[in-house]
Amino acid sequence: MTRDLTTTEVRLTPILVADAPLLNTQGVHQPYTPRLIVEVVTADGITGFGETYGDTKYLEPARVLAERLPGRSVMDVNGLFSLDLAVDESRVTGAVDAGGLRGVQSADKLRLSVLSAFEVACLDAQGKALGLPVHALLGGKVRDTVEYSAYLFYKWAGHPEGVAAEPDDWGAALDPAGVVAQARRFKERYGFTSFKLKGGVFPPEEEIAAVRALAEAFPGHPLRLDPNGAWSVETSLKVAEELGEVLEYLEDPTLGTPAMAEVAAGLRGAARSASGKGGGGRRAGIPLATNMCVTTFGEIKEAFTRDAVQVVLSDHHYWGGLRNTQRLAAICAAFGVGVSMHSNTHLGVSLAAMTQVASTVPDLHHACDSHYPWQSEDVLTERLTFTGGRVAVTDAPGLGVDLDRDELARLHRRWADDDGTLRERDDAAAMRVGEPGWRAPVMPRW
Amino acid sequence: MTRDLTTTEVRLTPILVADAPLLNTQGVHQPYTPRLIVEVVTADGITGFGETYGDTKYLEPARVLAERLPGRSVMDVNGLFSLDLAVDESRVTGAVDAGGLRGVQSADKLRLSVLSAFEVACLDAQGKALGLPVHALLGGKVRDTVEYSAYLFYKWAGHPEGVAAEPDDWGAALDPAGVVAQARRFKERYGFTSFKLKGGVFPPEEEIAAVRALAEAFPGHPLRLDPNGAWSVETSLKVAEELGEVLEYLEDPTLGTPAMAEVAAGLRGAARSASGKGGGGRRAGIPLATNMCVTTFGEIKEAFTRDAVQVVLSDHHYWGGLRNTQRLAAICAAFGVGVSMHSNTHLGVSLAAMTQVASTVPDLHHACDSHYPWQSEDVLTERLTFTGGRVAVTDAPGLGVDLDRDELARLHRRWADDDGTLRERDDAAAMRVGEPGWRAPVMPRW
Repeated sequence: MTRDLTTTEVRLTPILVADAPLLNTQGVHQPYTPRLIVEVVTADGITGFGETYGDTKYLEPARVLAERLPGRSVMDVNGLFSLDLAVDESRVTGAVDAGGLRGVQSADKLRLSVLSAFEVACLDAQGKALGLPVHALLGGKVRDTVEYSAYLFYKWAGHPEGVAAEPDDWGAALDPAGVVAQARRFKERYGFTSFKLKGGVFPPEEEIAAVRALAEAFPGHPLRLDPNGAWSVETSLKVAEELGEVLEYLEDPTLGTPAMAEVAAGLRGAARSASGKGGGGRRAGIPLATNMCVTTFGEIKEAFTRDAVQVVLSDHHYWGGLRNTQRLAAICAAFGVGVSMHSNTHLGVSLAAMTQVASTVPDLHHACDSHYPWQSEDVLTERLTFTGGRVAVTDAPGLGVDLDRDELARLHRRWADDDGTLRERDDAAAMRVGEPGWRAPVMPRW
Repeated sequence: MTRDLTTTEVRLTPILVADAPLLNTQGVHQPYTPRLIVEVVTADGITGFGETYGDTKYLEPARVLAERLPGRSVMDVNGLFSLDLAVDESRVTGAVDAGGLRGVQSADKLRLSVLSAFEVACLDAQGKALGLPVHALLGGKVRDTVEYSAYLFYKWAGHPEGVAAEPDDWGAALDPAGVVAQARRFKERYGFTSFKLKGGVFPPEEEIAAVRALAEAFPGHPLRLDPNGAWSVETSLKVAEELGEVLEYLEDPTLGTPAMAEVAAGLRGAARSASGKGGGGRRAGIPLATNMCVTTFGEIKEAFTRDAVQVVLSDHHYWGGLRNTQRLAAICAAFGVGVSMHSNTHLGVSLAAMTQVASTVPDLHHACDSHYPWQSEDVLTERLTFTGGRVAVTDAPGLGVDLDRDELARLHRRWADDDGTLRERDDAAAMRVGEPGWRAPVMPRW
């Protein structure tokens, strides 16, 4: 073989991507959100793509990594994880992450979130160099399509007046009827049959009503509610009691493994007592899902030993890439814990990566989350599409996607032209533009 | 790419390999032991090699699998695991395995033991087709050599008189002096600096004396003792108490997770009470290792939740191949459990596979076991060598080994000519040849 798989160049392109005014418990999505596109170029001129968070705190270690990569083989992805990225621990440890929605930030999580984009770019380059899809490099796909869920959000019709933003045609969704209308549109446009509502925005009764409205409108469809830890243990148990019959799972009702374990134990107890009283049709307790209390390998032991969560929502960005996602799936399988996928605002490079790795995980029994339908902009020459709520697993080399250089340049100029306010995602700050007195709520909010 | 990675042919070659009269708690190694060499041939004429157990119960599902493989891509290793191998559950479940040394046999373990050889052969073929070492297909090596331990055995000078066998030049080892002499020879010949004694052969006091003799002869060298579950909880605790200061770990002192958990808890209690009494230099309890109570993914949860074992000795044969070994290592890492490698009688194809996967596991902090130095015969054109107790991780394509066709044919003829008595490994039956009244002992033996 005359192939040279040595990395000769790494290109980092921070961009700002249009985002809709989607509400969560911390605030609202900014009109533009930072992402980072990573390109790893080999001696043979093959370029692999990766994507991750674009805030400055990710960009800085990414720059360190970009300098360390030239001279290394793109095959050596295991070795990436022992490189020192000089992450400044004091800047992140204990602080809440971008958007406040990924659990407690840590130096390790930050490192892995950066490394993931490079791992994906290396795998993409490997695949292109070898003429193989990424899934083949991961042992081969076990399914030809990957199912995603419709990611429903409470939202404003538009960003606050006077704010530079791209308009969207989804309209407002601030009550059960608005949520159901949004869900119908998701189903019509993309064929989704699973629905997840981002909660923690309104008092629990209103969100319970929205989920009930979804259950009526879409009988038998898997439904999830995710308040991003906004509730106390007591509120979590109350909501679970109300929605136990209609939810596929309840996602991060409360913050931290001890509180999640308390909720899980309460649900098991309630299920036992209901079945003892002849409530035979009742399930063995509604499962709890998380992408907040189990976000790193170090958090698994406590959560699994205490049976605090029944489904882990992996995110290859913060677990450190596609191989780590497979590792997480293996751990979950060994412990009888379900696995599916979390999503934050992302573009097509990441959706391609999510789809490739998801296709290799045998025990994937829940539709994955993706914000992708909300993104009106993308850096791909051809957007990925959902058919019947599914993305087809391509057998094209690498991730099977290509970059639209003009669009990448345009989104990068937007980033370069920004005065710095949008370069760090801050949903609470974005909320204050419309609601001046807003502060990210103290948890539990309800 | 014009490459065609489709499997067109699978060759299975059962062989009988000379083995030394090594003693264990079940009996003694047969003079010849069955192994199976698997070859997977692609449309381009590339051949990948794999190796596993060769008893009939492995051979039968291997034949089923060999028929199912043609037409499938060698890249699709994940898909192997969903193929139905028609393992006859009633033949294996609950029974003791070949040699009685791998824990309780199960249909799943049998399936995986067969699949592993095919997975390795597919990876070898992939590597050869792509011009990449197997470790690169597994994410890349994180070390250039893999350390092995000297695998010390009580042994007879030769197989019983009148039995057809190949002679060996190791002599007898039936007491502390014999064990130390064997260890010296291992160190001189191969440079090993870690020593493992296969125990469960003589009463515990004799084996304690042997380990003490090793500790005196090789001060500071890691030592292990493995009685294959021959002891009661009480005896295990007593031996651990006696050898706590000199053992790196104690391997499978007793059978089953509940008993191992009891021993582990006892050791932790003893360590606490010693440190409470000012025994400050004392370790936090001698670690327990296993390749008997944690041998499948389904056995992990109970053992890890109960903290029954501190080191899992993986065996890619029965865990289902190299990717599963990586998965196991990831699970161990997440739970703070150490990982290393178990060995049963094997040849160079398997040693090459063990070395490739071991090179990719970051948290490998104990020398791996290998019987390989005991094997006077091999099917390779060039034997793998130990230098300083280590095997170099080759960057040659695939496993980096080639088959000696003449030798393979010779060892296969030996298998074909056998009347059936040696085709199923049975250490107790082999023992009865020398000691007519021998029966595999009822456990715990002591």
